[in-house]
Order: sequence, then structure tokens, then C-alpha cells
Amino acid sequence: MLFTRIDFERPGKQQGFLQVPYSHNLGGWANVMIPCTVVKGGEGPTALVLGGNHGDEYQGQVAAMKLARELTPEMVAGRIILIPSLNFPAAKAATRLSPLDGMNMNRAFPGQPEGPVTSQIAHFLTNTLFPMSDVIIDIHSGGRSMDFVPCSHMHLVPDKPQRERMLKAMLAWGTDFCFLYADIAGSGLLPVEAENQGKTVVTTELGGGEGVPASVHRIAQSGLKNVLIHVGVLKGTETTREGQGKSASVLVQALHRDDYLLAPESGIFEIAFDLGAEVKPGDTVGYIHDLERPDRTPEPIVAKTAGYLVCCRVPCLTNQGDCVAVIAAPMSVDEALQA
Amino acid sequence: MLFTRIDFERPGKQQGFLQVPYSHNLGGWANVMIPCTVVKGGEGPTALVLGGNHGDEYQGQVAAMKLARELTPEMVAGRIILIPSLNFPAAKAATRLSPLDGMNMNRAFPGQPEGPVTSQIAHFLTNTLFPMSDVIIDIHSGGRSMDFVPCSHMHLVPDKPQRERMLKAMLAWGTDFCFLYADIAGSGLLPVEAENQGKTVVTTELGGGEGVPASVHRIAQSGLKNVLIHVGVLKGTETTREGQGKSASVLVQALHRDDYLLAPESGIFEIAFDLGAEVKPGDTVGYIHDLERPDRTPEPIVAKTAGYLVCCRVPCLTNQGDCVAVIAAPMSVDEALQA
Amino acid sequence: MLFTRIDFERPGKQQGFLQVPYSHNLGGWANVMIPCTVVKGGEGPTALVLGGNHGDEYQGQVAAMKLARELTPEMVAGRIILIPSLNFPAAKAATRLSPLDGMNMNRAFPGQPEGPVTSQIAHFLTNTLFPMSDVIIDIHSGGRSMDFVPCSHMHLVPDKPQRERMLKAMLAWGTDFCFLYADIAGSGLLPVEAENQGKTVVTTELGGGEGVPASVHRIAQSGLKNVLIHVGVLKGTETTREGQGKSASVLVQALHRDDYLLAPESGIFEIAFDLGAEVKPGDTVGYIHDLERPDRTPEPIVAKTAGYLVCCRVPCLTNQGDCVAVIAAPMSVDEALQA
Amino acid sequence: MLFTRIDFERPGKQQGFLQVPYSHNLGGWANVMIPCTVVKGGEGPTALVLGGNHGDEYQGQVAAMKLARELTPEMVAGRIILIPSLNFPAAKAATRLSPLDGMNMNRAFPGQPEGPVTSQIAHFLTNTLFPMSDVIIDIHSGGRSMDFVPCSHMHLVPDKPQRERMLKAMLAWGTDFCFLYADIAGSGLLPVEAENQGKTVVTTELGGGEGVPASVHRIAQSGLKNVLIHVGVLKGTETTREGQGKSASVLVQALHRDDYLLAPESGIFEIAFDLGAEVKPGDTVGYIHDLERPDRTPEPIVAKTAGYLVCCRVPCLTNQGDCVAVIAAPMSVDEALQA
Amino acid sequence: MLFTRIDFERPGKQQGFLQVPYSHNLGGWANVMIPCTVVKGGEGPTALVLGGNHGDEYQGQVAAMKLARELTPEMVAGRIILIPSLNFPAAKAATRLSPLDGMNMNRAFPGQPEGPVTSQIAHFLTNTLFPMSDVIIDIHSGGRSMDFVPCSHMHLVPDKPQRERMLKAMLAWGTDFCFLYADIAGSGLLPVEAENQGKTVVTTELGGGEGVPASVHRIAQSGLKNVLIHVGVLKGTETTREGQGKSASVLVQALHRDDYLLAPESGIFEIAFDLGAEVKPGDTVGYIHDLERPDRTPEPIVAKTAGYLVCCRVPCLTNQGDCVAVIAAPMSVDEALQA
Amino acid sequence: MLFTRIDFERPGKQQGFLQVPYSHNLGGWANVMIPCTVVKGGEGPTALVLGGNHGDEYQGQVAAMKLARELTPEMVAGRIILIPSLNFPAAKAATRLSPLDGMNMNRAFPGQPEGPVTSQIAHFLTNTLFPMSDVIIDIHSGGRSMDFVPCSHMHLVPDKPQRERMLKAMLAWGTDFCFLYADIAGSGLLPVEAENQGKTVVTTELGGGEGVPASVHRIAQSGLKNVLIHVGVLKGTETTREGQGKSASVLVQALHRDDYLLAPESGIFEIAFDLGAEVKPGDTVGYIHDLERPDRTPEPIVAKTAGYLVCCRVPCLTNQGDCVAVIAAPMSVDEALQA
Repeated sequence: MLFTRIDFERPGKQQGFLQVPYSHNLGGWANVMIPCTVVKGGEGPTALVLGGNHGDEYQGQVAAMKLARELTPEMVAGRIILIPSLNFPAAKAATRLSPLDGMNMNRAFPGQPEGPVTSQIAHFLTNTLFPMSDVIIDIHSGGRSMDFVPCSHMHLVPDKPQRERMLKAMLAWGTDFCFLYADIAGSGLLPVEAENQGKTVVTTELGGGEGVPASVHRIAQSGLKNVLIHVGVLKGTETTREGQGKSASVLVQALHRDDYLLAPESGIFEIAFDLGAEVKPGDTVGYIHDLERPDRTPEPIVAKTAGYLVCCRVPCLTNQGDCVAVIAAPMSVDEALQA
Repeated sequence: MLFTRIDFERPGKQQGFLQVPYSHNLGGWANVMIPCTVVKGGEGPTALVLGGNHGDEYQGQVAAMKLARELTPEMVAGRIILIPSLNFPAAKAATRLSPLDGMNMNRAFPGQPEGPVTSQIAHFLTNTLFPMSDVIIDIHSGGRSMDFVPCSHMHLVPDKPQRERMLKAMLAWGTDFCFLYADIAGSGLLPVEAENQGKTVVTTELGGGEGVPASVHRIAQSGLKNVLIHVGVLKGTETTREGQGKSASVLVQALHRDDYLLAPESGIFEIAFDLGAEVKPGDTVGYIHDLERPDRTPEPIVAKTAGYLVCCRVPCLTNQGDCVAVIAAPMSVDEALQA
Repeated sequence: MLFTRIDFERPGKQQGFLQVPYSHNLGGWANVMIPCTVVKGGEGPTALVLGGNHGDEYQGQVAAMKLARELTPEMVAGRIILIPSLNFPAAKAATRLSPLDGMNMNRAFPGQPEGPVTSQIAHFLTNTLFPMSDVIIDIHSGGRSMDFVPCSHMHLVPDKPQRERMLKAMLAWGTDFCFLYADIAGSGLLPVEAENQGKTVVTTELGGGEGVPASVHRIAQSGLKNVLIHVGVLKGTETTREGQGKSASVLVQALHRDDYLLAPESGIFEIAFDLGAEVKPGDTVGYIHDLERPDRTPEPIVAKTAGYLVCCRVPCLTNQGDCVAVIAAPMSVDEALQA
Repeated sequence: MLFTRIDFERPGKQQGFLQVPYSHNLGGWANVMIPCTVVKGGEGPTALVLGGNHGDEYQGQVAAMKLARELTPEMVAGRIILIPSLNFPAAKAATRLSPLDGMNMNRAFPGQPEGPVTSQIAHFLTNTLFPMSDVIIDIHSGGRSMDFVPCSHMHLVPDKPQRERMLKAMLAWGTDFCFLYADIAGSGLLPVEAENQGKTVVTTELGGGEGVPASVHRIAQSGLKNVLIHVGVLKGTETTREGQGKSASVLVQALHRDDYLLAPESGIFEIAFDLGAEVKPGDTVGYIHDLERPDRTPEPIVAKTAGYLVCCRVPCLTNQGDCVAVIAAPMSVDEALQA
Repeated sequence: MLFTRIDFERPGKQQGFLQVPYSHNLGGWANVMIPCTVVKGGEGPTALVLGGNHGDEYQGQVAAMKLARELTPEMVAGRIILIPSLNFPAAKAATRLSPLDGMNMNRAFPGQPEGPVTSQIAHFLTNTLFPMSDVIIDIHSGGRSMDFVPCSHMHLVPDKPQRERMLKAMLAWGTDFCFLYADIAGSGLLPVEAENQGKTVVTTELGGGEGVPASVHRIAQSGLKNVLIHVGVLKGTETTREGQGKSASVLVQALHRDDYLLAPESGIFEIAFDLGAEVKPGDTVGYIHDLERPDRTPEPIVAKTAGYLVCCRVPCLTNQGDCVAVIAAPMSVDEALQA
Repeated sequence: MLFTRIDFERPGKQQGFLQVPYSHNLGGWANVMIPCTVVKGGEGPTALVLGGNHGDEYQGQVAAMKLARELTPEMVAGRIILIPSLNFPAAKAATRLSPLDGMNMNRAFPGQPEGPVTSQIAHFLTNTLFPMSDVIIDIHSGGRSMDFVPCSHMHLVPDKPQRERMLKAMLAWGTDFCFLYADIAGSGLLPVEAENQGKTVVTTELGGGEGVPASVHRIAQSGLKNVLIHVGVLKGTETTREGQGKSASVLVQALHRDDYLLAPESGIFEIAFDLGAEVKPGDTVGYIHDLERPDRTPEPIVAKTAGYLVCCRVPCLTNQGDCVAVIAAPMSVDEALQA
């Protein structure tokens, strides 16, 4: 069962570990050690900052590590808990899923106290860290397999005041696009567990691929701080897009199966539109080429819906059934609040 | 020994294969089949177009496959030979090196007639295809591990007329940057073998990472055609940057060890500058973070030379000794011709 | 949860997929796509034809693919649903078990709606496809590890009218041997789930090994059609062994542990009898040779029961505990109906 | 479900197998065969002797195999059941965990009748073999990853008479150290299941590493016999340390988290004390060296408690979180009986 | 360098090993031990019997092991040297190529004294065993990947008397077909090295696939003995096909590239003719099916030449370029002697 | 080609790297970086200290790393060059051989400038570091697979003055045993290359297995310093066994094939004698047990020669042909000097 020497109630700054016992062939009495930093200042809310829910998404891991080093108790009103690499074994291996148990952390909630390593971590969050938090920030990107226009995103929770808090926090990240999604991909998600506990949940899809351009690191690091200022746990002045002379974020949604385009067969995927470009139904957004038989006409990937290309597959080598493109339609803030 | 049913002297269009016998555990009498297209029109030079020298670089593979389908003998003055996926087994596996023999095609020249598969392919090029060609176009990118500002590039060959032909052909690709490099990385390179045979050799580094953005596919496909028009084998009118209202390509060079920055230890690499940005000596262009001990100050990667950041490592997870950044200094066309 | 765009109630012919969401390291939002064909003609029963329950058994996969291409609504009285490669990931990998979750499809019933991929497929059959079917044909062979005399086979279900329907359908396949087996190998079998729903279940063991001789392909393809004609869903005239001038199928049973001979130690297995040969108790049906110590007397495999050698292990390299031979005793149709 | 042809009630000596059905890609109808020997003599208790609970611990496997060959019914008063390699697939692979299902046999109790192979074996012990036994001897060592001062050990069970029986049996092994441990490492342990059934449970940690020195083989083989004599199932005269002119065994305990020292980061572990040496709080018992950066000061491993170094990590290459040293404090026999 | 304690000149029977030093991660000073039996009787020639040139071909390995156990000096006129598993590491792994060095024994001749393990074995044969032999029998089959009509075969050596000796010895095997082949597959073959030394070389292709039917074991074992009698080294009376009431062996040849049909793309191969059947140019001998897109018309494999189908691919799962069928045309004994 | 920024002629202390270019799938322009420390004081000889010739032997790696940190120019008369982990990729992987090229560093000499990584390192030593050194210390142990009585050892070089210098340096290590060996194991050894250049070469076999006991670390670290003092490059006073009240080191030799006992078949190895014990011809020094068939009598390993057991295999799981024991006979210093 997960154990930690960190005292989350103690004022000041602590750097420690969440420890999960893990017996394997090269370590009979070994432990997985997940770094965790707690900074507790004066009165205020508690924010839990999570990177590495998927191990191959380093945008949030780097932002959280840097913030963990930088923060002092004086900078904090309340408490900030940072876990830069939540699925730590996956982060060490640069994989989406944990190499120890094959589990997807984002399908492991609420978790089990004596289950596999991933499940034990989920259980500790569900039962210990979420209850002590007001705001939960879970920083994702497309990981190795997908690339997103950098965006914060959220789930349209049924509770309207909670939804409004979440929408404002999402906008505080300051990305060009904000992405509204519905639940069609299975159960066990971290944000859903946190939402069900009534928390203000902020999530992102900050680019993707195995690398992170400097521009995306800047968005991750500045957006994270701005959200923490927005929710009142980090001292400082909130920045707005307006204040920076930018237009408002574009809200988009992709709630239907037809918005997600799949590879009809295996081959080499070529994307034909730039991320963020507008797409009409019938547009050919990409192709699947056959390396063995280049004489054959490639299979076209045709858009069924209108909107922006917000996401596409990264690795050219593609399997039948892989998601190769996502088209999201614009919506207004009011629609998002009322939907 | 490599065999093909293609008759390179026959007018018209042929789609066939280079076949390399390969006996393995699941196929005693198997062959590696490398697709090859030949289009022979009227009088003119011969151009050999190569993609997939490294299997994980799909920019040129897609451009060559599309051109191979599109070309008719009427469009060609002379002969165009296209091999979209030169290291075919690597292209099928999305790896830099061949999974069959672990070899780097770009270190395998001049090759051996009865050697490993990669070496047999190199031998066939050296002894059959290069001698029948006037222009050799080898389309690279940074592959999975590195990202370049999309550029055509060349080696400063000692023969001045050859160098001038190559420089003009390089410029015909129309990229924002053109990259001049010297030989420090070992022997056996494909372009060096072709250069030694006196050919006009055109090479590129068109981006990198596991994915290819639509904008880079466009550069690959339009640049390839423009170079083929420039050398007179594809009919049509050459496009120039000037004609498109663009400034001239920036020529840059990175000829010294200090231009190539290495990771001083293993960890998570964060790049701090955008590709193409200007860098001064002493600038911290990136960091190596320690996931296990995020409390530690990361190792800075400090520029030693001035110039543009033309290349950086893609996968955040980095080993000690990996090249994480390349700084290239500007030079003029005249300097390039005289150097 | 498994999803399909196929409308099983629509008349005519549809080619589509069963889609199972599958998130993995190289595809965050990927799907497993299992090809499925439905052909609905006039009034009549529904037959569900399944190949590739084990991925390395291609006899039924090829027969079902060919039939799926050939069928038109006019040829069908009722409805034929064909899934050529039920455990599709295993079929792509030529393995018995699914490479995605390690599961044996034939031990995965009744399945779970949010379980591993194999379990989701089983759940869809149990809850959607079996209830809409009257006849379920599940085409097996010995796969990579075992070789059978090509035979149709069945389980002696307790319900006598159901058993009689099944026995007649089994005989309609027209194989030289028909094999009656009892349940000793665990729970979760596909045919048992179908039998429990009262269906006419027809199964086979059509040879084995990694390859399929042309003669066995012929039995698979002709037998499948003849059974579909027999149950009245495919138009045409039923063929009988009698009509072809053949003797009646030999019914055999292997219901006891002693009928299944195991390797007493690891080594190289040599079979000493031909498949289909008669064996007496005390006969040495094979040997285990020791490659390291060929001077040693090999371990004999001695028959404990009398009957026909209906199955033997294929790969010579054998582990202790592998089943190396199965001896089945003859029984009459009457015994089969009454037992 | 596990099956055996052994009749545990039959007098005399039988050598047979526990068979667990196991269907895999290279053996559709295969079985795992776990050797088991039963020797039944005249009246007396039943002892169950287990080696290979973890597959990479061969001390007990060799001792049990040798004893199994040596024993005759005449030597036994009651019944001795020997399973030299309990986790047989792991023993064949020299791994702690089963390569078939990844399970730790010592976390698999009470087991499931239709579960994975490891779980089926646990279930058979829990439900068949433990109930027919009075004494259960489970011979462990540190395996590949850890090295112990050779010791017998036990769990301080709450039932005082049972605890006293166990303590006397533990002392009968005759090792220099005896180790008392408490349950902090999770559930599902073999000895805990046996203890809960009221049995006299004797366990050991006889050295460790991939090899076994001759001196440790002697302790394993002589100690096993002496315990069997002590509990009255093997005929002969009990040997005592006193009779051999040795001082009494030193009893030690390590019941607190601080007794178990973990690697604070990955690297090369160097142990600084000999096994069995006395250690004071503040002593540096080892170091973690950084191979990539040998100029760095190594991380010291500092003892927090006083006692004997009873265990240390074996492989120098160490991951963060691996247990690198265990410090155990002395206690008296009376304390052990009363605690 | 390969070493052996066997004295090949000593009369009588010896069972020993060829030892090749092999240092690896789990054995610093290890050796590969290749079993070898020598039986020396009175005056007569020397025959060298080789099985397991490819590790996954067990027909000859079993025949040679059985003969090695059975032979006594009294049965031999001259000397018989048997190496049942020539590529011993491959035989232990059931692979065509050596798992130690990836080498194909049948492309490793003449070998190197200090090269990889496979090359050292080849060197010992070339320099020690071939020179002391008159007759060399190398028993092959199609291995895991191919299936042949069981046949003995030979290479049409230029020396006519040697060719005649070889042809008679080939016929002495007594198979239905005998196969004449030319050298198109590369260099380094064992039989070519032996032929160049002027030896009578007898080779076979006795079936194929991972398993060996009892009928093929019988051909391997009886044919081997008959050839040894024929060449005068085993005492006994030669059996002839005529004496058994069989027609003469059919001699066939496949000397042209068009006789070897390759898979034009990857997929599932279905063979449409039985092995040994007659085929006409234009006949569709098989198909490549696409599992992902079963709606597509499969690629036909069309015969280009007339003759018998003497070989086909075994595993249905096929890669582009795999040899899927071989068509061989009949020729007479006279043609074979004169060609 | 290997490159370094270290200036071996510069006085003072430098910590740097030997860099070998290495292009692989995850790093196109990567380098292997081998840490190297140079400490140059006043006048005196040059000593080259090497650990990690085999990557899994950490005794010398730890000793060299500690000494590299501790040394200052003031402590050195001449120059000490330390390479703690010579086969660095193997040391990172804890394997004997390099995981990059499968090569054994100790069979790679003299090396090639453009060969595989291991070969490039060997080449640099042969051509750059050996020529500048007077004394070469190469610290080995048995690694993962073998365990030695801790000893320094040497090769009986033909040059008598060189032999005498080496013997005295060997004795300066101060181990209980010193081991004299002859060359039977192949070519390409590091010490042989150094000896051929006339250097004073000191080597060791300091224990073995995956772990290193504290007592062996002490021998490695104290012996290394004492040898450096003995040869005059490290300031300080030499320690002698006599001065410590110990008897002289026992010199032993194992020059014949019969001294090296091999496993006659695969199984579980049990050693029956303690390391350093005296053994007579005919003694059973160990057994090979059969886990599958524990009822079988184990194969005995019988000594053929008299002497001390100086080495035995570590991992119990053993392959046929593995060296399981080495018996070495005593000899005098005079015999060693004259032999």
C-alpha cells in the first residue's frame, strides 16, 4: 500500500516521495518512488498540480519540476502540491502506459489500495489528495502518438457553478484554442473522479509528439502559473489574453464519433492540413500510403464534419483503427455554460 | 546479390522492385523487395530520387511515392528513377537503421555485392544506378531523434564547378535556410560516394520527429519538383523565392565540434529556444532535468558559438552524449563557392 | 465498449467493422477494427460464421473471407453474418492468444463490456450476436501447435433435440472423422456459451500446423457451404458423403484423461504413427529425444487406450507437459445421440 | 484446474506431478507439471517441504530434490510431502516471479481454482495440502536481488503455543542468526495462510544472489533434516548448536520501516559493511555511485537504527527505491515468545 | 577455436562433442557442445552424416540420433561420422539460423577458425571432416517456412564421374521425386564446399513445416540407411524402388528465376494446389488475402512455367517477397547426367 | 573515430570523456561518453588504471571512481590515467558484453579506428594510451557468471625481466591467492596487447557474481593503491602481507584443459566444495540436477586434476558446456619466474 513520509499539513516546503511497494525479479523488496513537493504558505485554497498522467507527455512534467524548485512558502496563499511525474515508471520509460503493469493511469480511477502500482497511485489520489484539494490541474498533451493545437480543455460537468469555475480557470491558461469534450472513451478517468468530488478541474492538451518545442514549454509554464494565480493560491497578478493584445480563445467542441477520423487500413499517414486550419465536410484531410505498393492510389481520409483540425496523428507509420484526425466545431462561451 | 526485372533503358514508365535475397527464420528463400519506378521520356539527363535512406524519415518517401504515381513519360526530358524507400526494411519498421542487419544505409557505401541487405543495396547504387545518373537527390530529415529547420543542404565538395552546380540545385529547393556541412561523422556516406563520381548531389534536412506537419510535406513535394525542373529533367517552369516575394535563403554552416552540443548526462531535455532563432555564445539553449530528483538544479546546455539554432533533439528522454542542439553561423553564397 | 456502424437488420450486403477502443503507447485513441460482413436475403434463419477464434488457425478465416466476397443477398434465405478473424489482433500476429491482452478468446466468454479487448469481443457475441443467431459455426484447427485429422466436432450437450440438430449439422461438413468431446479443459468456451443459449453449434478441427494444405482448404470451404445449405440459410443442394461414394464419417470420442498423452519431459518429439491410424494400448506412439545427449535412450510415449490417433503435436521442440498425442475411440451415431 | 495422479494417502513412496492446464501459443493443450514426491511411513505427523516459492532461490530446491531421492518409507514416521520447485515455471527461468503470469507466488494466497497458473497452485496448497499437513517448511533465500546472513526466520503469530512450536522448530535449523519479522509487505503470503490454519510454519532466508556457496548448501540440507527430525517425522537424532560447540543462535528483529534502507536514486551500489556486522545509527553502510559522472560525490546510505546488517542488495546496478540494506536489532528468546 | 576429444582414427564407437568456446553474458568461459558420434569398423570408405544444418529441420536430426545409438563397429565397413545437430544452438532454439550469431550455416563455408560460432563449425568441417570423408550426407527439409514433396536432391556438378556417383546415391534414397537445382542463391553452401573437394554429396528436402509426419520420419530413416548401404559403408542389402514395386523416382529441375514464385505483397497466403500436383503456365497456384480488408480481391499467384508443384510456403502469414511456390519441370536421368 | 578533449600532457587533474560517435534509432548523431580522469604530478612513470573491461565487474569500477575523486596532483609522481568503466555501455547495462555491438572488449584488441564502438575503444588504447603508459592495471572479477577466490593474476610472458616486474606487481596486490594462466581462450585480449608493447601488466580476478561483498571492495581498493605505490606513481609506503602478519600469497596455475570442468548437460548446478578448498582427482566437486525429473540421479562433476578450487560457476541455472569449476595447482615463485 502506498506510503509517504510527507506531512501535507506541515507549513513550509517539503520535497519527498510517494512510495509504492513493488516486488520484481531484480528487486525483491523494491519500491516505486514518485517525487512530490508540497509548499504551504498562509491561508488559502489547495491546488494539486499533476504532470505525467501519461508518461510520454513531458510538457507538464517540466513545468511542474521547475515550479517545484522555484516556489517558496512566501509565494503561496494556501497550499500547492506538485507531482511532476504521476505515472513515474511510464515517465522514466517515455511511454503512455506504465511498463510495470500495462495500465493507463487515466483509466485507473478510483483505484485499489492493494492493486497494481498504477492502481495504488490512483487510489491514493482519490482517497487522500483529492479530498484535501480545491483545484486539480492535470497537464496533458497528445503524447507520442498525437499532436494537438496547444489548448486547455474541460469536460462539460452537469453542475453549472462548478462548470463556470472550471471554464474560467480553463480560460486563464491563455491558449489560442480551448477544447470542450464529452465522455465517450471509457471509464476510470482522473478528471471525472475529481469532478465527481466537486473540484475545480483544469486540464490541457499542449501539443504532442515525442518532442516539445520551446514555444509550447513557454505556454505550459506561463499558463500553469496564471491558473494558480487565477484560483488564488499563487500570489501575483493574473495575465489575460486581452491584456496581451490577443483575441479571445476560440472555444471548440468535438462530441460526436464522426469528429474522430480513423485509419481505414494500415500504412503511412500523410496529413494534408495544418493544425488549427478550418476544414469542410468532404475535404481530404490526409492519406494512407502503401509502402509495399506505391503504385496504388492511397486511401483518402475525408472529413465528415466542419470545424478546425485540432488534432492529428504524429507517427507516419499507422495501424488500421488509429485516430488520424479530430475536427472540432466552434461554440461560444455562453453555449459552453448552458449546454 | 541484388536483382531486378526493371530495364532502365526501356522508354516509358515501369514500376518494379529491386530484390535482395534474404534468408531468415520465417522465410528460407525470401527476398527484400524495394519498390522502384523509372520514367523515361525524350532526350535529357538522368535524375535519381531517393527517399528513406533512413527508414524513419518519411518526408521524401511520401514525396517520391506521389511523384512516381503522377509522372508520365511525356512529362520527362531524359529519365527519372525514383526509389521512395531506399532502406525499405527500416521504412516498414519506422527506424533509422535496418532491422535486418542493424546497418545505417548512410554509412554503408560503397557496399558489398554479397554482404548484408543494406550493403547490397548500397553496392547496387554505387555500381549501377549512380553511374547512369547525372543528378542524385537524397531526401533526409532529422528522423525520430532530431528536428531541423526545413532546409536543403550540401557538402562543400572540392571541385568548384561541381560545387556550383550543387549549390544552385540546393537553392532551387527554395527553403528558408540552406545548410553547409563538412565531413566529420565517419565514412560510407551515400552523398560522398555520389560526389566522388562527380554527380550533382542534392540533399535535405526537412524537419524531423516521428510526424510530418502538412507544411513540411508541402516543402518536400514542391521543392523536389522544382529541383527536377531546375536540372532539366522535369518539364515545367522553375519557381524562385524571389518570384514568390520571399527573401533569399539564409546559408548557414556548422563545421566545428563546438557547434554540436551534447547532453552532459542522461535526463529529460528541455529546449529553450525556437528552431531558427539566433543564439549567442553563453546563451542557455536548454536543460537536462532529473526526473528522480526534481529538487536538483538541472544541467544547463550552454551555446559555445554564435549563429542560428538549426537543429535540436526531439525526444525529451535523452541519454548522455546525445546531440541536443546544433548552432550554425551564417555565410554568403560567395563564401560558400570559394571556401 | 465495442461499437459498430453495421445495421444487422438492414436487408442486403454490408461490409463493416466491429470497433473496440484500445489505447496504447503508439496510439492514444486507437481502435481494434474487426471486419464483419452481413448478408441478409429473404426469410430464413440466421447463421453466424466465425473464423480466427484462435488467431493462428487460418482455415476458417480464408473460407469465411472468400464466402463473404462471394455471397449476394439473392443467395441467402435469412441472414449470414461472417466474422473471418474473430480474434483479429491474434490473426494479424499469427498467434493463438491475443498479443494485446494475452487472452484466449475461447476462454473469455461470456466477456465484459469494459474489459480487455478480447473480453469485449466475447461480450458483444454473448449479448448481441448470439441472441440474433440460430446457428453458430466456429471453425477451428489445431493451430500452430497441434495437427488433427480434419474433422468437424461437437460437444455432447444435455438437451437431446439440440444435440440431434448439432450432430446432423456436424455430419453435414462431410469429414472422414467426427470428433465428440467432453468439457474438461476449463470454462469460458465460445461454443458452451452458444449451446447454453440453445443454438445449433457446429465446430471443427481442420488439420493444424502453421500451414494449410490445399486439400484442407477445400474441406473447409466446401464443408462450410454444405452446412449452411443444410441448415437452410444458403440456397443450394446439400451434398452427402453417400452421394460422393464415400463411407460414412467415423465418429470418435476422447473423453478421458488417459486419451491425452503428455510429454514426460522436454525434448524433441518424434511421432511414430500416421494421423488417423489405429492404435492399441501399449503401442509406442512417439518418443522424446534429448538433443544434448543423443546417446541416451529416448523417452517413449505409450498409448494407454485403444482407438485412432486423431491428433498429435506439431513442433518437434516440445516442453514437458505438452500434449503430444490424442487417442479417440469409435462410437456409433446412436451412442452419440444417447450418451 | 490443478490435477494430480498422486494418491497422498497411499503408503510408500510416489514420485509424480501436480498438473496445471496452460494453453499458450506453442501448446494449445499444454500443462505445467510440478514435480512432487510423497513418502509415507508409519504413524506420525505430516510435513510439507517447499522449495522454489520464488523461482530464483535454489537452496531449498536442491535440498528438497536430494532429500526426495534419498528418503524411503522406512525413514519416515508419518508422511513427508516434497515439492522442490513450487513456482516451477519461475524455477526453470531462474526468476523470482512466474514468467507465465507475472505473479509472485508469495502474494498469491489463498489462490483461485480457475485463475492464472500461480494462483491455481496456491489454491491447491490452501485447500488440499495445507489441511493435510502439520508442519510446513518453506525454504527461501534472498534470490537474485538480495543476500541474507543465512538464517531461519518466522513471523510472530499471535497464538502463543503455535508461536512457541514455531520458534523451537526455527531454532532447530541451527543457523547463526534467526530473524523475526512482522507483516508490512502486503497480503497473500504463503506462511500467513499456513499460520492461519494453525500449522507449525518454518521459513528461512539462506543467503542469496544467483549462486549458492557450498557452505550454504550444507546449511540448507542439514538444517532441513534436523527440523524434520525435530518435529518427529524423520527418524534420527536431533543435532543442536550446543552439541556442536557453537553459541546459541542470535535472534534479531526488523519490524520498522527505518530498518529497511532504500536507494535514494539509481546508480551503482557499494556496500561498506560485511553481512552480520554490527551497525550504529549514523554509520554509512553504503554508497550510490554515478557511472556517468564519477566526479560527483556518491550518495551515502546512512543507518537510522542500531543492530546487525542482516541483508544487503546484491546487484550493484540499482534502481531508486530498491532496498539496499536491512538492519536488525537483537532480542532474546523470551522477548520473542512474549512480544 | 573448435576443439574435440574425439579421436577419429580410433576403431570402435565413440560418443563425444565438438566444442566451440563461446563467451556470453551468462557464461564467461562457456562452450557450445555439438554431439558427434564416430563408428569405425573394418576397411571401407568414410561417410559423414549431417542433420540440423538448419536448426528447424528435425527429420535428419532424429534419423541421425537413432542411427548413432543403433550402430556398432560390426555393422560398419569403414567409418561413419554422425553429427545429428550441426547448427546445435539453432536446433535447441528450433530456428533456421543460429541464435548466437544470426548466421546461416549453409552460407558460412569455408568458415573461419576464430570467427563466430557458426563459422568455426564450418571451418572445422572444411578443414578436418570433409578431407577425411568420401561421402557427405546433409539432410535438409523445408524447415519452418517451406514444405517440399519429400525428395533427395543434388547440384549438377561439372565433373561427370562425380555427378554420376552423386546421382546414383541420390536415387538410393528412394523418394518419389528427386530434385536437381542450380546455384542461384549465394555463396558459402556446405554441399558446394564438399563438392569442390570432390566428394559424393547427397542432400535432401524431406517435407517441411514445424512438424514431421510419421511417414516422413520413415523416409528419412530408411533412405539414410539405404544410401549408406549403397555407398558401401553400412553392411546390408540395398533396397530399390523397383524391388518395392514402385515406379522410378521422378526427376525434376527448377533452374530458372521464373520457377520460384514470390509474394507480391504481404498478407495471408492460400495455396490452391496439392504438393506434387502438375501445374500449367497461367494456373493460379495461390492467393494473398488481406485480413484488414477482406472485401478486396486477393492477389493471385500465377504460374509462369509448367511442371510439378514441388514446394510451397508453410506459414499462412506471409511477407512481400517470400517464396510461396516452386514449380519444377521433369527431366530424364540421361538429361541429368549430360546437362 | 574516438575523440577526446582531454590533454594527457597537461599537468594537474582533468575529468573528461572519451567520445565515440554512435548513430542509433533514438539518436542520429549520438556519442558514447566514457569517463576518464587524468592526474599528472611531478616526474615519474605513467599508470593506466582500467575497470569495467567487462561491464558486469564492478569491483574495479568502484575502486577507480573512488581513487579518481580522491587523487590530487600532489599525491602523484608521474601520471595516473583512470578509466573506471572501459566498456561503458556494458557497465550501464550490467552485462559482460557491450549491448551496442555484442562485443567482448577483452577479445577486441588491437581494435579498428572506424569499427564498432567496442573496437574503437580498443583501438584508442592500443594506439594512444598504451604507448604513453608504463604500467597497465586491468581489474577483473568473475562477473555475473563466475566466482573466483579474490586474486591478482598474470600471464607468463616470455620476456623474463618483464615477467619479473609483473610478478612483483601482482604480489603487491596482497591477495591470498595469485593465479598464473596461459593463453588458451582465443585472441584479442587487452593484457596480451599491452604485454606485447612491453608494459608491466597487472590483472585480477576479485571474486564474482552480481554483487560485491564489502570485504572484496576493501581488497580491490587497498590492492590498487598498493600496486600504484609499488610501481612508484602514487606516493606513500607499500604494505606487505608479511608486514600485516599474513603468510605469503599462494601461487597457483591452471594451464591445461582438464583443469576447467564443464557442465556435461544443462540443469541446476550445485557446487560441493568451498572456494579455495583443496581438491583431489576423482573428487565430486559438484552436481547437475534435473528440475523436470528430480527422481533422476544428478550428473556428477568430477575433478580430473589436483589443486585448489579457485573458481566456480555462480548462477545455478546452467547450460551444457558452461565452465562450472576450475582447479589450479600450486607452484612456487621460482617456478613462476623460470617456467
